[in-house]
Amino acid sequence: MKYTIAVIPGDGIGPAVTTQAKKALDAVAEVYDHIFLYKEAQMGACAIDKTGTPLPQETIDICRKADAILFGAIGESKYDNDPSLKIRPEQGLLQLRQELDLFCNVRPIKSYPKLLKNSPLKKDIISGTDIVIYRELTGGIYFGKKEVSKDGLSAYDVCSYTVEEISRITHLAFKAAQDRKKKVTLVDKANVLATSRLWRKTVAEIAKEYKDVTLDFMFIDNAAMQIVLNPKKFDVILTENLFGDVISDVACVIGGSIGILASSSIGEKNALFEPIHGSYPQATGKDIANPLASILSAATMLEYLGLHDEADAIQRAVEKSLDLGITTPDLKGKNQYSASTAKVGDFIADYI
Amino acid sequence: MKYTIAVIPGDGIGPAVTTQAKKALDAVAEVYDHIFLYKEAQMGACAIDKTGTPLPQETIDICRKADAILFGAIGESKYDNDPSLKIRPEQGLLQLRQELDLFCNVRPIKSYPKLLKNSPLKKDIISGTDIVIYRELTGGIYFGKKEVSKDGLSAYDVCSYTVEEISRITHLAFKAAQDRKKKVTLVDKANVLATSRLWRKTVAEIAKEYKDVTLDFMFIDNAAMQIVLNPKKFDVILTENLFGDVISDVACVIGGSIGILASSSIGEKNALFEPIHGSYPQATGKDIANPLASILSAATMLEYLGLHDEADAIQRAVEKSLDLGITTPDLKGKNQYSASTAKVGDFIADYI
Ligand SMILES: CC(C)[C@H](C(=O)O)[C@@H](O)C(=O)O
Ligand SMILES: CC(C)[C@H](C(=O)O)[C@@H](O)C(=O)O
Repeated sequence: MKYTIAVIPGDGIGPAVTTQAKKALDAVAEVYDHIFLYKEAQMGACAIDKTGTPLPQETIDICRKADAILFGAIGESKYDNDPSLKIRPEQGLLQLRQELDLFCNVRPIKSYPKLLKNSPLKKDIISGTDIVIYRELTGGIYFGKKEVSKDGLSAYDVCSYTVEEISRITHLAFKAAQDRKKKVTLVDKANVLATSRLWRKTVAEIAKEYKDVTLDFMFIDNAAMQIVLNPKKFDVILTENLFGDVISDVACVIGGSIGILASSSIGEKNALFEPIHGSYPQATGKDIANPLASILSAATMLEYLGLHDEADAIQRAVEKSLDLGITTPDLKGKNQYSASTAKVGDFIADYI
Repeated sequence: MKYTIAVIPGDGIGPAVTTQAKKALDAVAEVYDHIFLYKEAQMGACAIDKTGTPLPQETIDICRKADAILFGAIGESKYDNDPSLKIRPEQGLLQLRQELDLFCNVRPIKSYPKLLKNSPLKKDIISGTDIVIYRELTGGIYFGKKEVSKDGLSAYDVCSYTVEEISRITHLAFKAAQDRKKKVTLVDKANVLATSRLWRKTVAEIAKEYKDVTLDFMFIDNAAMQIVLNPKKFDVILTENLFGDVISDVACVIGGSIGILASSSIGEKNALFEPIHGSYPQATGKDIANPLASILSAATMLEYLGLHDEADAIQRAVEKSLDLGITTPDLKGKNQYSASTAKVGDFIADYI
């Protein structure tokens, strides 16, 4: 079969890790007799440098037409620390999420036996953890009106949600729970926020349609703590955009490394796959970035395209690289021999 | 000397732990020849039950006139899961913060050697950690306009900040850093929020007045992860209201237990001291609630009143109780003998 894949390498270590993911996909193509047609597109700081905008129209067009989107990372520190800059790389990603209505961000968090030692958490706390976070991705304070006043003396951001926005991701979260441990935890701040109360009411209503699934509620402050104290208590976490951003990064420590976690952002018509780690500018160009999250994003993409055996092949190759310790420095103890970004990518492609 | 202390036991385990804090204060009064005049006041679910409002005017008056306020906990689950209730206990605390302009919430996070084993985090990650979080407490999304629409189909919350609100807590944070490791980390989401960009700009400007202090910036998602991965890298964390709420709860896991962490909320004229743990309704009436956080709140209050030796006396007694293992079940391993809330309080008062 032939698939068109929009590839957005992005900023920082994005290009380096995406290159490895393509190697894995090429290996899959060869073994399983597919054609992956890559369409490269620009987004982020690199797009600002070249075109003046973080998301050129051409990128949107390529993404719309593709069967799936493989994305690297976004962001560059020069934009973070200069609040006067009106254009920022991240706007590209946010706008793409909105343009393609990628409302449902799915982040699986698992403890890999081989990486237990890499986690700051004790082994008995994390081993056996299996959580999936459903984060709403196109609403909330990310997309509400926002403004710094003309005199520069005040600013505001509006967080808003509609029942419709809440409902569509809630159904997906409950369906996911039905195939898992049948538990959904809604994370919110209903003791303070009106939007959280709307979430609580809407989700409680929808829960009645899923009699086999238990629903419980947790405030974000407590949830961010509980996910570190008792990660095994969670199954599906459902939450709004900003809380999802924070809790999924906290949850990363369970996996032992943010360098191996992939996420999917799903809409009605399009889907984007990316590592959870960001652009990590400090590591750019050093051939030390961990490509596993990007490679696993490619595997998740194959699942989405219905190519389950193919996805498994990548997954197995990644596990093999972990078993053999063919990994980048971030997964190593001090003074242990480590492989470069490209070496890890080559090994995985060869193994497939 | 004579001091008037407003005591707000509040909900859940609040009354039980506050009683123990008063025992400690009584012991201090006896040894150091002070008079603490307690004025009991209502706030929270218990106040709603008795007076129809979570913060009766009388409570505000008592607090205003007192030299300091000792607070227990707030919240009851029946209010959390019924979004139709218009009055909620937490409104009492939020309103009190606003009425008394308690804009600066200070949360010290330390690892206690005796409690290292209780943390879900590995010993080498946390030992030696010494962080203090400065959380803005009377602005942001907590106090902006909020509304569920009449038809119930949408809702919004507004987050807003002024330069003035940001400045006053920023100065306090930098002053604190000067007496510590001379580092301030501003936690925000400046890649998305206008209010965060105002924070970044304002704080960067003020930082120039404190040449001996280093300022760095971290996005909330990354910070919530880094505080678990590398807590020792932080000194003073400065942040807005909601991010402070979340990150200080995540940071609790460093101390080994949320049951021993105290916080102060400081305004120009008043100051309130409370445990970080909430009302924990499940433990109410069982005599198992850990009173140490409340007792340490009392110690922090004494510091604030300038009674340093007295505060030390409480601190030493708490450390003794930890050394001897005279602690509530939450700090114990399975099947270890544990003491009741009242027993721990008695021991500490006796030791003082
Ligand atoms: C880059 C940034 C805007 C983005 C977000 O906050 O959504 C990132 O942190 C993420 O989680 O995908
Ligand atoms: C009870 C609640 C409103 C409060 C808050 O969110 O500020 C609490 O979590 C806290 O941190 O003091």
